[in-house]
Amino acid sequence: MRILITAGGTSEKIDEVRSITNHSTGKLGSLIAASFLKHNVTIDYVTTAHALRPQSDNVTVYEIGDTQALADQLQKLLQQHTYDAVIHSMAVSDFTPEKSLSQEEFLTKINQFIENKQPITAADLTQLTEVTTRETKISSNTDQLFLILKKTPKVIQQIKQLQPNTILVGFKLLVDVEKEELLAVAQKSLMTNQADFVLANDLTSIHHGQHTGYLINKEGTITGEATNKEEIAQLIVKTLLNAL
Amino acid sequence: MRILITAGGTSEKIDEVRSITNHSTGKLGSLIAASFLKHNVTIDYVTTAHALRPQSDNVTVYEIGDTQALADQLQKLLQQHTYDAVIHSMAVSDFTPEKSLSQEEFLTKINQFIENKQPITAADLTQLTEVTTRETKISSNTDQLFLILKKTPKVIQQIKQLQPNTILVGFKLLVDVEKEELLAVAQKSLMTNQADFVLANDLTSIHHGQHTGYLINKEGTITGEATNKEEIAQLIVKTLLNAL
Repeated sequence: MRILITAGGTSEKIDEVRSITNHSTGKLGSLIAASFLKHNVTIDYVTTAHALRPQSDNVTVYEIGDTQALADQLQKLLQQHTYDAVIHSMAVSDFTPEKSLSQEEFLTKINQFIENKQPITAADLTQLTEVTTRETKISSNTDQLFLILKKTPKVIQQIKQLQPNTILVGFKLLVDVEKEELLAVAQKSLMTNQADFVLANDLTSIHHGQHTGYLINKEGTITGEATNKEEIAQLIVKTLLNAL
Repeated sequence: MRILITAGGTSEKIDEVRSITNHSTGKLGSLIAASFLKHNVTIDYVTTAHALRPQSDNVTVYEIGDTQALADQLQKLLQQHTYDAVIHSMAVSDFTPEKSLSQEEFLTKINQFIENKQPITAADLTQLTEVTTRETKISSNTDQLFLILKKTPKVIQQIKQLQPNTILVGFKLLVDVEKEELLAVAQKSLMTNQADFVLANDLTSIHHGQHTGYLINKEGTITGEATNKEEIAQLIVKTLLNAL
């Protein structure tokens, strides 16, 4: 049996010295790997620099930095191997920096827009990213900095495109919402990403060793509930071993 | 003899799951500490989560996250102890996220401005940060994200204010500039920050174990030059021991 796990959090470069990073200790991913390793499973493990990682001869670790590197690495692995299941627990950046403008540059450009046409539209805003500036290291010589970010491609969506028969487990983390909203948003992401299961969790329920998680299937049914990371790992592994 | 060293890189929160981080392995700071430890020095060492740190009974480590926490920690230490020298090698964020706006929110607000007055001024832009949005976790449901950042306080400037008699070593990292520009900018930062020395370096000369650094004094004279991190550490420590 061969399993692909992603864990940790991606970083998107702003310039040569700064990045936007999604927090993730990678602990849950490494616990899922540890739980699978008890069942004679071969694991490909894609992770990031500062995340915890499992140590075993049955685990091959691939380290990536940003969302594009993750997409490339997953494509490569999904073309090389057939996976019985993919557990995509990595916290992936939704946005990547496209342009940074000083307050002065931003004002100049916006006021140029206004002279030409009003109101400003979404299409105009894309032109903001075409202002020519030197991007090696943002100068601190401005009171405000305008950072324009664009959406990253949804990496999870390429998994089922490349391997329709794998069992895909996605993750949905929200912050401080009602359980009903969490479950609804998680189920929606499951449909969008063609996942088979999604682990829904809320940041406010993650503290002091506790971590509430709901495993939801395609029908929106909660197939399991866990109260800490070890239980979440076991729940996912047990569910997948039953399904396989 | 008591020395204060800062090393690593600060992180500024965007929301509950994302931060902007200044890259720094903390290696240079830990080498400076190691070099000082050969001379029976007591070290207070302020650093960040993922940075390398020296291990010794003579080193007390303080971990901080963002620029404000660094400012608070330094103020506390500078009020508690008298330092013979302060080596401020931490990569500190120049900006901290103040507000994030979806493309839709940004357009609405900008077009409201235009209706009322033209051209838009810097003062108007500060109002952008007053748009009410829920900031727990930025929704990915927008094509562009506008992140508005404001300047952080210059932490290094509080050092001489609190301890005028300490010897302060600052750092200036630029990216891909001529040596003349690097030295001029570094000397300017030395004056602004009331530093006694500044270590000027360029990211493009840091690779494969090499790291070119120039130590500059108040007169703008290069008092020493180094070609790797070990040499930079020794140069700084030797210069400070001579001066003390």
